[in-house]
Amino acid sequence: MTHSGPEVVDPASVETPIGCVDLERARANAKRVVAYLDRHGLGWRPHIKTHKSRLVARIQLDAGARGLTVATLREAEVMGSLTDDLLLAYPPVGDAKLQRLLRLPAEIDLKVALDSVEVLEPLARAAAQAGRTIGVLVEQDVGLGRVGLQSAEAVADLARRTRDLPGVSFRGIMFYPGHIRMAESQQGAHIEGVSSSVSRTLAALRSDALEPEIVSGGSTPTLWRSHEVSGLTEIRSGSCIYNDREALAVGVADADDLAYTVLATVVSTAVPGHAVVDAGSKAVSKEARGDGEGYGFLLEHPEVVVAGLSEEHGVLDIGASEWRPRIGERVRIVPNHVCVSVNLQDRVLAIDAGQYRWMALEGRGRGAWVD
Amino acid sequence: MTHSGPEVVDPASVETPIGCVDLERARANAKRVVAYLDRHGLGWRPHIKTHKSRLVARIQLDAGARGLTVATLREAEVMGSLTDDLLLAYPPVGDAKLQRLLRLPAEIDLKVALDSVEVLEPLARAAAQAGRTIGVLVEQDVGLGRVGLQSAEAVADLARRTRDLPGVSFRGIMFYPGHIRMAESQQGAHIEGVSSSVSRTLAALRSDALEPEIVSGGSTPTLWRSHEVSGLTEIRSGSCIYNDREALAVGVADADDLAYTVLATVVSTAVPGHAVVDAGSKAVSKEARGDGEGYGFLLEHPEVVVAGLSEEHGVLDIGASEWRPRIGERVRIVPNHVCVSVNLQDRVLAIDAGQYRWMALEGRGRGAWVD
Repeated sequence: MTHSGPEVVDPASVETPIGCVDLERARANAKRVVAYLDRHGLGWRPHIKTHKSRLVARIQLDAGARGLTVATLREAEVMGSLTDDLLLAYPPVGDAKLQRLLRLPAEIDLKVALDSVEVLEPLARAAAQAGRTIGVLVEQDVGLGRVGLQSAEAVADLARRTRDLPGVSFRGIMFYPGHIRMAESQQGAHIEGVSSSVSRTLAALRSDALEPEIVSGGSTPTLWRSHEVSGLTEIRSGSCIYNDREALAVGVADADDLAYTVLATVVSTAVPGHAVVDAGSKAVSKEARGDGEGYGFLLEHPEVVVAGLSEEHGVLDIGASEWRPRIGERVRIVPNHVCVSVNLQDRVLAIDAGQYRWMALEGRGRGAWVD
Repeated sequence: MTHSGPEVVDPASVETPIGCVDLERARANAKRVVAYLDRHGLGWRPHIKTHKSRLVARIQLDAGARGLTVATLREAEVMGSLTDDLLLAYPPVGDAKLQRLLRLPAEIDLKVALDSVEVLEPLARAAAQAGRTIGVLVEQDVGLGRVGLQSAEAVADLARRTRDLPGVSFRGIMFYPGHIRMAESQQGAHIEGVSSSVSRTLAALRSDALEPEIVSGGSTPTLWRSHEVSGLTEIRSGSCIYNDREALAVGVADADDLAYTVLATVVSTAVPGHAVVDAGSKAVSKEARGDGEGYGFLLEHPEVVVAGLSEEHGVLDIGASEWRPRIGERVRIVPNHVCVSVNLQDRVLAIDAGQYRWMALEGRGRGAWVD
């Protein structure tokens, strides 16, 4: 598949800062994930929050993804014409969101993740009124402490509740073991903990004849060890399509797997030891990794760290580099966290087979998508 | 002046997360800044990066702002029809940006801040070719160490260089004493340092018959002490139109001066001690203030801190609060840094005289603005 966007763009004529995507690398990343999962009989329902692009979602589906995961209704609307298998990995709360959810095409096998009866019951009521049945994945907390029920019994209780309600059907469980900064030495114990937590839940469900068709997990640091989680049927991992500084740091990707950068231009070298580029927190996103680690690094000069970010200024620490930047020179920044940087772009410049074209981010924003 | 947007909106029908602006508070904030500056004979050329809205820029101009400051060409294009006094407080580097700059209406008295001959010379060439004269503010570093020339002599050298070049004229100097986290006890010494640095520069310029018409400074923590900087003619302070958690922390604003919040809905209470809302880093922005201080607080329950942010999840620490959130309940988050949160909104909900209406953020994004 090649990029089907409009005309070829000369990157030298493009204003910076601008997010750039390498589609060949994205395709290779998708293939590698699917090959790994195929070996272990697991499915991929990638979270498209990372890229928000229909073109990249098609790459994932062409590579063998079984469906797509979305976080917002805008994302669901945009991706709804690409697949009939959608997971909204987010509780839809409030009538406006429920009505919007139920306006998605009827042919979509729609699943929703939730962790409370307060979300389940209005969803079931609205779905029944609309003459639809929405699949439910009950969300369990496996240690991150963000959302999710706290015990196997609580998961089974909520799953059981779906039996009494028209408009919903129990499809399985979802969890997010996203302990991002975990050291490699801790991963074994972490996976064992997740595994035993999930096993207890599966046992509790089966003892009540609630067979989960979907057991959905997956996290970045343990991406290649997903098969060690017993009972898992699929992962949702999304950022592996592009990767970022975090993925390099936790060892799940190499520099050759980086498919997203922010193209920036050097605008000032007036302060000794620094160079300033025109990509700031409104292009890179100021997502800290830890004290003094900065917000990204340069693809061409990995020793150069983005030490500071103002809104439109990125301060490059060139103290550890032989590189002496010139004003007007262009650099490519690998952000700490790719998803939040992509979200800041109006559109991105995609390279494929040596040619650059504009690529839309249709899933970005919150308004209703009209195709 | 009242809001001239389209129809009145019922906020209960609006999906969250959504940025909200209180226009009456914004007007009061603008008046307070102008009243202070009037007492000291100083001007206000507010940086519109905070709000990116024509309506709010009009509030600032109606209150008495002498012009507007912008950071991007999009912002310049959007604001160019509201005032004939624009400062691009950012070096325009590269032909695409220069051509775009020179397409701004000829009647605008356009000024550009820069700190190098590498930016000055192409600007002068392009302006001369376009038959225009662009004003130059030479940027000086007064201690922040981001951009700006390092000495009075370097400023005078670059100012002198403008004399030889058609297309540009020296108009003054600019500096940004943005030492955001400075304690109040340090402010006196800080202002003295800035003052003496600026005084040396003014002396160096005047010794060469380069009289700066504009001496542009201003920063959030020292907003109400701007008059103590000798030689200052104006400030550019922008975030004071809305204020944020940072402004409260450094003592330049009270809770009653907060004019921007992110409206969010509680979506999960499954994890003890926490509640989760649907405003994450893609609505609030994950801009850290310091270890363990979180990313914002609730307007209605100031003791509740946004302890964590994922992309679409905000984790509220309710451990110090009597408040027991219900799923579906709405809250208003005051972000650490208002500018980056506003930049994440497609549009905002503005309240004025008790009525809500949508307000556009025309200056957001990077594409060319077509009126």
